[in-house]
Amino acid sequence: MTQSTPALRWTGHSLQLLDQRRLPAELCYVELRSAPAVAEAIRDMVVRGAPAIGIAAAYGAALAARGAPALAAAAAWSAALEPALAVLAAARPTAVNLFWALARVRQEIAAGGADLPARLERLACRIHAGDIADNRRIGAFGAALLPAAVRVLTHCNAGALATGGYGTALGVVRAAHAQGRLRQVYASETRPWLQGARLTAWELAREDIPVLITTEAAVGGLMRSGAVDWVVVGADRVARNGDVANKVGTYNLAVLARHHGVRFMVALPTSTIDLDCADGGAIPIEQRAPEEVTQFMGRPIAPAGVGAINPSFDITPAALVDVLVTEKGAVARPDAQSVARLLR
Amino acid sequence: MTQSTPALRWTGHSLQLLDQRRLPAELCYVELRSAPAVAEAIRDMVVRGAPAIGIAAAYGAALAARGAPALAAAAAWSAALEPALAVLAAARPTAVNLFWALARVRQEIAAGGADLPARLERLACRIHAGDIADNRRIGAFGAALLPAAVRVLTHCNAGALATGGYGTALGVVRAAHAQGRLRQVYASETRPWLQGARLTAWELAREDIPVLITTEAAVGGLMRSGAVDWVVVGADRVARNGDVANKVGTYNLAVLARHHGVRFMVALPTSTIDLDCADGGAIPIEQRAPEEVTQFMGRPIAPAGVGAINPSFDITPAALVDVLVTEKGAVARPDAQSVARLLR
Repeated sequence: MTQSTPALRWTGHSLQLLDQRRLPAELCYVELRSAPAVAEAIRDMVVRGAPAIGIAAAYGAALAARGAPALAAAAAWSAALEPALAVLAAARPTAVNLFWALARVRQEIAAGGADLPARLERLACRIHAGDIADNRRIGAFGAALLPAAVRVLTHCNAGALATGGYGTALGVVRAAHAQGRLRQVYASETRPWLQGARLTAWELAREDIPVLITTEAAVGGLMRSGAVDWVVVGADRVARNGDVANKVGTYNLAVLARHHGVRFMVALPTSTIDLDCADGGAIPIEQRAPEEVTQFMGRPIAPAGVGAINPSFDITPAALVDVLVTEKGAVARPDAQSVARLLR
Repeated sequence: MTQSTPALRWTGHSLQLLDQRRLPAELCYVELRSAPAVAEAIRDMVVRGAPAIGIAAAYGAALAARGAPALAAAAAWSAALEPALAVLAAARPTAVNLFWALARVRQEIAAGGADLPARLERLACRIHAGDIADNRRIGAFGAALLPAAVRVLTHCNAGALATGGYGTALGVVRAAHAQGRLRQVYASETRPWLQGARLTAWELAREDIPVLITTEAAVGGLMRSGAVDWVVVGADRVARNGDVANKVGTYNLAVLARHHGVRFMVALPTSTIDLDCADGGAIPIEQRAPEEVTQFMGRPIAPAGVGAINPSFDITPAALVDVLVTEKGAVARPDAQSVARLLR
């Protein structure tokens, strides 16, 4: 069970993160005792996945407060902690859960008090536990939409490893499997970091959920052959109008799904919805180093001097999304009105 | 110049193949002196690309005749050489150029004669030289269809390395570049063998043709951003109705291109057209070992025991092809009538 090896563990005085760069070959935790160390772990992909990044940032803030001198006034706490929050906020740009978690931290700081370190620790633990509970609701709402003997294609890893536990897209998969209605999962390998091959396949195989890996190249032929009923993915940020930023390659799947009459589900906690972004065009897309594409395990796989594009995310327009599934329920054919109604 | 390091070199008594599995890290040739050795090199991807496979098979047949006892009667030659031809034919199933070349070999064998070994050697050299000449015509016909400052996305490697020289899709790219009308090439990396990142990028960079590598995952977002004008790919087999078998991932590109109003060109010699296949459904699609996906450079990248689908090719319906370009000219919106007219 992945529950026994969660992405994040709080020890009471430090944050332990499962080093996801080393999975599935090695299963080891790194221990972090400061906000900058947490920020570095987010940036370097020790932990990834929008909800998990948000939870990690909350723990990072708790570590900062723990390491600060004893204070009481809100203004003093804010002055002491803002530099750490800024470092956390700069770790990665696209997943909005990071900024959502830091906003909740700032609300807590605004109340001041000598007990702020303990309260920030409790807040992080509450965000963590709340995420798991939300994922179980997302799983139940999403699975209810799937037919019997469903064949699901998922991309990247929106699983227990990307969240507090259970997963968003893989929460839907787990719930369908628990109900005996899941026939097959296809995990697209997800270049360049291979989160599908390394993480999703690992999570599902450990629970005996039938999974086959596919390259991104083969997904069109797979859909054309009639082997896929639903695409189910997570999200890193959803705009007010329902446009979805998610792992690069998601948009290909949405276009291919629509072309083949395959249904397309995005599973996410409402903390992933960013009402400040009117549409997908307002969502910042992280561009990572070309070497992530041109090297593999430190060895070059392309000629020296040749560059690569390496966006981490892409935007799927709401019009290609059949349903958004959140812990508050599902929204078919999302648009600004239905997303607003969901959040009321 | 890739011309100085061709995929295939005939020494007069052996076939030297550039070992494409080792590019771009190493540039080395393997020397083959028998038909079974050539068949093994085709199967193991030392040489790949439909036209190059056909040329290699013709040289393999010449090596078989060279190694046979002195004979004269056609029936005796046929009995002596058919086992070698069968081994060559079984090397890989999808590229029809292999069977096309062996059919030409069999025509030559049917004429018998004590000089058959020399004639088969000349035939192979003629097929080889003819392929290069055809590619230059394909390049000229294809480039004439492209606008100024064109930005081309290509997949896999349909270049000098996949042919006798110059290339089909990359022949079009080379011709456009020579005319000063090429602004940018995007090479999709082409999992699992990375022919785009390893071979296409290498070929183009050596000739200072501007090339950037992209994962297959990022191609949809790239098209959505307006960065691609044309997709130009090669083919492994084209059916009578214009359906195209090509490297897996081609079909994704065709669907995405149509969705974005990007134009889609397939460049091929007419030896790649198989009139015996009524449509794409009749083209055999090679399924290769799952380990090609689940391992990388011999190291596992997926959990032990998890399988993968690994088709080498997919089918793009003719309806998604804007133009087929051959050495005999271009066919817009190909169908059974226009393909038949082209071959008359």
